[in-house]
Amino acid sequence: MATVPLISDDDISAEARAVFDDIRAVRGTDFINNFWRALAHDPDLLRATWERLKVVMAPGALDPLTKEMIYIAVSAANACEYCAHSHTAAARAKGLTPEMYGELLSVIGMASQTNTLVNALQVPVDEVFKA
Amino acid sequence: MATVPLISDDDISAEARAVFDDIRAVRGTDFINNFWRALAHDPDLLRATWERLKVVMAPGALDPLTKEMIYIAVSAANACEYCAHSHTAAARAKGLTPEMYGELLSVIGMASQTNTLVNALQVPVDEVFKA
Amino acid sequence: MATVPLISDDDISAEARAVFDDIRAVRGTDFINNFWRALAHDPDLLRATWERLKVVMAPGALDPLTKEMIYIAVSAANACEYCAHSHTAAARAKGLTPEMYGELLSVIGMASQTNTLVNALQVPVDEVFKA
Amino acid sequence: MATVPLISDDDISAEARAVFDDIRAVRGTDFINNFWRALAHDPDLLRATWERLKVVMAPGALDPLTKEMIYIAVSAANACEYCAHSHTAAARAKGLTPEMYGELLSVIGMASQTNTLVNALQVPVDEVFKA
Amino acid sequence: MATVPLISDDDISAEARAVFDDIRAVRGTDFINNFWRALAHDPDLLRATWERLKVVMAPGALDPLTKEMIYIAVSAANACEYCAHSHTAAARAKGLTPEMYGELLSVIGMASQTNTLVNALQVPVDEVFKA
Amino acid sequence: MATVPLISDDDISAEARAVFDDIRAVRGTDFINNFWRALAHDPDLLRATWERLKVVMAPGALDPLTKEMIYIAVSAANACEYCAHSHTAAARAKGLTPEMYGELLSVIGMASQTNTLVNALQVPVDEVFKA
Repeated sequence: MATVPLISDDDISAEARAVFDDIRAVRGTDFINNFWRALAHDPDLLRATWERLKVVMAPGALDPLTKEMIYIAVSAANACEYCAHSHTAAARAKGLTPEMYGELLSVIGMASQTNTLVNALQVPVDEVFKA
Repeated sequence: MATVPLISDDDISAEARAVFDDIRAVRGTDFINNFWRALAHDPDLLRATWERLKVVMAPGALDPLTKEMIYIAVSAANACEYCAHSHTAAARAKGLTPEMYGELLSVIGMASQTNTLVNALQVPVDEVFKA
Repeated sequence: MATVPLISDDDISAEARAVFDDIRAVRGTDFINNFWRALAHDPDLLRATWERLKVVMAPGALDPLTKEMIYIAVSAANACEYCAHSHTAAARAKGLTPEMYGELLSVIGMASQTNTLVNALQVPVDEVFKA
Repeated sequence: MATVPLISDDDISAEARAVFDDIRAVRGTDFINNFWRALAHDPDLLRATWERLKVVMAPGALDPLTKEMIYIAVSAANACEYCAHSHTAAARAKGLTPEMYGELLSVIGMASQTNTLVNALQVPVDEVFKA
Repeated sequence: MATVPLISDDDISAEARAVFDDIRAVRGTDFINNFWRALAHDPDLLRATWERLKVVMAPGALDPLTKEMIYIAVSAANACEYCAHSHTAAARAKGLTPEMYGELLSVIGMASQTNTLVNALQVPVDEVFKA
Repeated sequence: MATVPLISDDDISAEARAVFDDIRAVRGTDFINNFWRALAHDPDLLRATWERLKVVMAPGALDPLTKEMIYIAVSAANACEYCAHSHTAAARAKGLTPEMYGELLSVIGMASQTNTLVNALQVPVDEVFKA
């Protein structure tokens, strides 16, 4: 249960509905996941989050599947249960295979380990790494 | 300055030197960065970390540049200064362009934002996302 | 389910009961929330936590609602499910409106985003910001 | 040193300069801090970040000083050195007194402590806290 | 529910089964906990994680109970629900008393508090602490 | 440089001086490290932090060295540079050997890795682990 009731299609404000309409159009599905239904209490935050997400996750120099894997990595580091589920589902819909998922997890695990070792040891940055 | 002195090539144990030799051979360079010089105080930890890193970061279902970008994402979430520098340098050596870096940062920023919104709102996972 | 059984009023030690009595008196309610029932296994930790919380959250240079919003912000960053729920409830009891909550979430989201961008980019502190 | 060179006013692109111009106009100062000079490598990320920050931090249901304190709280939890310095400086410019800062720190410390106790104990959310 | 189905003994690959066999032999029990059943989708990650865990958690300069307490401390800081439960259970099996658990929690809480105070204040490291 | 000037012995308030006196007496040294000099701006926060630290870190069911190792573990997970340095120095003063430090780091690294794997996979807690 969220800290706010999830907004159903019957209870939504006109401004939030307009954002839901765009989410549906861009994604080609009628389904609106709970994250947007929680944000719909604040149409400005809902719109700003969606408008930016739409741009950020679109194909560009990086493909959408790579972007979803990066999203999963950050979400795991931030212990976000919802985000791990929703972005793993999104990655699968974009072609994540079991082999890719296994390697993604392996990199996430390796990075977490060496990040914390470095933060314990306080290793100074090599001069050669400075841009 | 680290919590331990960085081990120079002159002061290194035989077990740690063997790991340094393998790092040099695999990477094709004489340069050993400070992370390994800090770990060299514990040859077992040094060896285990390097042996696993070597496997995890090798080409597979994901290419090495994608793996470095995932590493950067986790390192940013974990506030690891050394790791941000060393893996951004590694990513550039593997072909990271400014356009890719900008998109990587954009996804990292977006994920951090929505992770924390979800963690504040405690959004329940949609049934459809459950595997 | 917690890693310890929650202590009921029937099973409580005399030292822990004294702390519960003070919580009830200060808050003007008979209700003791689960956090305190989990801490009650260690009366010293229970007392130290409550005695400090009582002082820290009291009105001062900052009003109690502002303090609750700061508490929510830290709890979201630390991915604490219980704390998000309990302090959002507390903030509402102290006057948090939907408009305030939306702005609070917006600041939390913005800060999380720029924190991680800075931690990825390792931006050096401007001289002018140093006290 | 950042992972990218900081962009000076002499090397900046036209799109990034337009954002800098707006930052200067809104803030009423010629000074551009390093965060924006690092983001200026990606004018889209620079613009999106600034446009959202400008809205989020403006006066609303919460006053700008309260927003800066919330920003400091999140930044401390995320171990962001730059952000701690820059937002503490911003908060002082908006009226943060030593008394307020002491109370802000006290709440941040208390929240961090209880967040981690709860995450260790895995305290279940009381029914009464569920919205 | 995990992002992958948990692998039962009936559906497991030969490589993963070999790891389960070793876990059972080392631990002297037929029980395999869910963490390993989730990792079993990637036998390489499963094996690497188990082989390293087996070494790291074995008696050495630190006894196994001390190691479990350190594991709980990191898990609490990383908001890992599963890890808090599984390692608290493991610590109890190795002799953790209520008194020890209370002190462990007290140190975890204290460290979390002062970590965040330091990260807010950005206290410079005393010269005397540098190795 | 901290966000506040460090308080010298010449500029200190009477209330803060009394806490410094107790720190000196308990520790048997005239040296006051920077953390306390930063907190000294708020004598109440200084006193509360010191009074609790003094109790928490004293010998009990856990010995002081074990407590310092737990403190290091939390500090590494929270990316606290100052804390990593100060508590590693404190642990050494209490008998931390290189072998113990290597094992401590190994456990910290292992826990960080499995925490993040679990947070990515969202592994459900086994029934048997529930208290």
